[in-house]
Amino acid sequence: MTRRARRQISPPRALRYRQLRHPFAPQNYFSEDHIQAIHNQALHLLEEKGIKILLPEAREIFAQAGARVDDDMVFIGRDIVLAAIASAPKSFALKGATADRDQQYELGAQIFGPAGGCPNATDALRGRRPGSSETFLEATKLQHHFDVIHLLGPSAEPQDIPTNERHYFMMEAQLLHSDKPPSIYARGRAQTMEAFEILALARGVSDAEFKDNVWIKTVINTNSPRLIDRPMAQGIIDFARHGQMTIITPFCLAGAMAPITLSGALTLQHAESLAGITLSQLTRTGAPVSYGGFASNVNMKSGSPAFGTPEHVKLTIGTGQLARLIGFPFRVAAGSASNLADAQGANENTMGLWGAAQAGATLTLHSAGWLEGGLSFGFEKFINDLEALQTFAELAQPAEEGAQDLALASLNNVAPGGHFFDAVDTMERYADAFYEPLVADLDNFGAWCDNGAMSSMQRATGIWQQALRDYETPETCNDVASRIEGYIEKRRAKGGAEIMN
Amino acid sequence: MTRRARRQISPPRALRYRQLRHPFAPQNYFSEDHIQAIHNQALHLLEEKGIKILLPEAREIFAQAGARVDDDMVFIGRDIVLAAIASAPKSFALKGATADRDQQYELGAQIFGPAGGCPNATDALRGRRPGSSETFLEATKLQHHFDVIHLLGPSAEPQDIPTNERHYFMMEAQLLHSDKPPSIYARGRAQTMEAFEILALARGVSDAEFKDNVWIKTVINTNSPRLIDRPMAQGIIDFARHGQMTIITPFCLAGAMAPITLSGALTLQHAESLAGITLSQLTRTGAPVSYGGFASNVNMKSGSPAFGTPEHVKLTIGTGQLARLIGFPFRVAAGSASNLADAQGANENTMGLWGAAQAGATLTLHSAGWLEGGLSFGFEKFINDLEALQTFAELAQPAEEGAQDLALASLNNVAPGGHFFDAVDTMERYADAFYEPLVADLDNFGAWCDNGAMSSMQRATGIWQQALRDYETPETCNDVASRIEGYIEKRRAKGGAEIMN
Repeated sequence: MTRRARRQISPPRALRYRQLRHPFAPQNYFSEDHIQAIHNQALHLLEEKGIKILLPEAREIFAQAGARVDDDMVFIGRDIVLAAIASAPKSFALKGATADRDQQYELGAQIFGPAGGCPNATDALRGRRPGSSETFLEATKLQHHFDVIHLLGPSAEPQDIPTNERHYFMMEAQLLHSDKPPSIYARGRAQTMEAFEILALARGVSDAEFKDNVWIKTVINTNSPRLIDRPMAQGIIDFARHGQMTIITPFCLAGAMAPITLSGALTLQHAESLAGITLSQLTRTGAPVSYGGFASNVNMKSGSPAFGTPEHVKLTIGTGQLARLIGFPFRVAAGSASNLADAQGANENTMGLWGAAQAGATLTLHSAGWLEGGLSFGFEKFINDLEALQTFAELAQPAEEGAQDLALASLNNVAPGGHFFDAVDTMERYADAFYEPLVADLDNFGAWCDNGAMSSMQRATGIWQQALRDYETPETCNDVASRIEGYIEKRRAKGGAEIMN
Repeated sequence: MTRRARRQISPPRALRYRQLRHPFAPQNYFSEDHIQAIHNQALHLLEEKGIKILLPEAREIFAQAGARVDDDMVFIGRDIVLAAIASAPKSFALKGATADRDQQYELGAQIFGPAGGCPNATDALRGRRPGSSETFLEATKLQHHFDVIHLLGPSAEPQDIPTNERHYFMMEAQLLHSDKPPSIYARGRAQTMEAFEILALARGVSDAEFKDNVWIKTVINTNSPRLIDRPMAQGIIDFARHGQMTIITPFCLAGAMAPITLSGALTLQHAESLAGITLSQLTRTGAPVSYGGFASNVNMKSGSPAFGTPEHVKLTIGTGQLARLIGFPFRVAAGSASNLADAQGANENTMGLWGAAQAGATLTLHSAGWLEGGLSFGFEKFINDLEALQTFAELAQPAEEGAQDLALASLNNVAPGGHFFDAVDTMERYADAFYEPLVADLDNFGAWCDNGAMSSMQRATGIWQQALRDYETPETCNDVASRIEGYIEKRRAKGGAEIMN
């Protein structure tokens, strides 16, 4: 690590990583006819078999729109769904604290979000332990530090903070340490509204200005199959009402909570995502909402969830086909089932990332650091996954296109059997011609042995430590504390806000 | 490893892995105009700046076709090159011992070859050591055992065999232990001709039948920049004359033996590959020859070759664009600079494989087991890389398309909030619904710890050992020894065949 430690862990080319567009055309795996059949079947399922919605307020909204409500089952006519599909915005800006952190959320954009929703954290120094405020803060700083991570995510749950105050801590950690768009869990109206108020204070905008722009996202997970629970339905309503972004994401594991066939799993995902999108649009026409999919398979012998599998890649591409059918920007997920930042973990996550690339995903969550199928946020895993993300960011850069890029002076003048180490084009471009690896060690075997024969998992420990040392608080965060602490203090004094069950 | 060891290491779905077609459309990275400019510049380079060809016989062939020869420099007019491009076959069968091992070599095919050309071998039991006949044999058996490896490759060099007899050993090892198409190095006419004779005996075909079909391939590496050495030129001539396949592959490392720009490196690669293709076609019109590219970058600080980098992926896609421009099937490479089968190694190889997939490569060499930028054949690396290859093989399977795949019976009957573990579609399909991982461990953290908390690199050791135990000699190999051993014995008695320098 000595040589590596001498330079700052932050590639000089990183500024180009902030707003990415997909360089490749989205691909299909299923036939167009089959995707249309899945869409039709999902509409049929919502209309005829219905979806269970546990929140009375949400059922009331559906009823007012003409959906048939029978006890806690809601049967949503296809006209209602199609109107919601039509009214949802297909492109909007998700705003950071400064314009250069904004992300245009639309088809064609390539946005990476980190691992989120993990109860535990893992690193080589401290082992595996329950997520804490310390690791949440460190993970937030790491997410900030690398430009290829475009949004903040709720890494490992800060379990040492009581649930009624956890949203304060999570908002503080994000807003005091980064200018990137934050995330918050939808855990009931009280917490959601306080998070919005804290964010409006931090950004220095009025309620009206807050509502007119998209400042924050939350992931809405349905309880597959065909159930939306109370906090999730509440989240859809509250975020829509205040113009903030929900990402409606059924977590459809084929063979477990979804049918064993890929088409069946996609049908269920599509129906549930459309139900959430519809609730969003019925709450407020034009509310920002993302189509979402996180479908993979389980191992049928053990029931264990699998990620980065062929089925995961196929389902991700199918998700893209369904999203494009309805014209929506959409979110998918990478991630890993591995318990370590080893070859399995790298292969699974990189496969998932390429599935997202083939799909043309607007947003890929869990793109770095997701161990154990999401049960742990891995610090070494995060660093190793960044290498893949930075590779995608480089692929998204404009291609060489001019005559000068042919390097004719070198080609014409280097003798047969010679070399280009000191050719004129080399001299002009060597400083930043190529991507500089973050964790990959290109030394030959002898030099690598002399340096300790470390695996990339072992090297990553020094890298995340160095990145935390190199981390700098963005200037725009400097006065955030003075804006939000008074508010939070008062709320804490009042006992915080209970979470909804 | 206990549970894993209980089942045979060979997925039951593997028979579907034998002949693959790319499931996705090839992608572009460079503009069509820029690719055309590279093509034009390569033609210009061959015509005006020439290429150094060390073998007099090859220069004579060029001269007879009207190329200008000045000492050992050959200046190839574009008409000669364009005629060669036109005359080369764009689709042909590369034949194994049995029809189900044949590979149609053409655009659209997706063929995987193993790591080749490594001087050393690495595994966890025996460490890193010079390649030997033992490891060559083991690697050949492993290459045979997994159906997703379509061609045999010269894994680690059997350095314990004298060079004048090494080709006998390599042919024996391949022909006695596998029915897949073999490889041989072009190390001069004497060795090449003996390899052909051994192969014709093994396949039981006459000289004429041998010549009329493609039974073996060799990789021709130019000595970039703009030089073809004696054994390589001899190989092009001898393989063409006998109807066998050369893969003309400049190894263009941008910033070292190729220009620092990607376009410059591709221009050089294209010129050199076209020169080799032209020599092949001038030797025998219609001889089977593949366009080849293996372009990546070096790290400009250390000069170390890098693989799986963004530049490698871009160059691979550019190679595909150039090959499609001239209508040729083509070969690229994956591989890894890592010294271990760790996350770096997995990420690099999987990135390279996806580069090949984006390019629509006919053949991807070094797709499994290539450590240290090719300086070692890794047994654990081979196993870990197979997981990625098998994922690609699964992606190449036909997509679900029928109404029955929607799993309507399950979707309609599983209650909201329920599960599909025992749904009717699950019961019908659970046995082979999903890809069964080779090395990935999907256990949760507790179970994984109970089993020894092994990384996928550690698990791979047991897997390659088990695969060697499970390996079965194909029936068609049984009488090969009786066909070839007499011939080889006589040749050995005569002192073998010297290699060409």
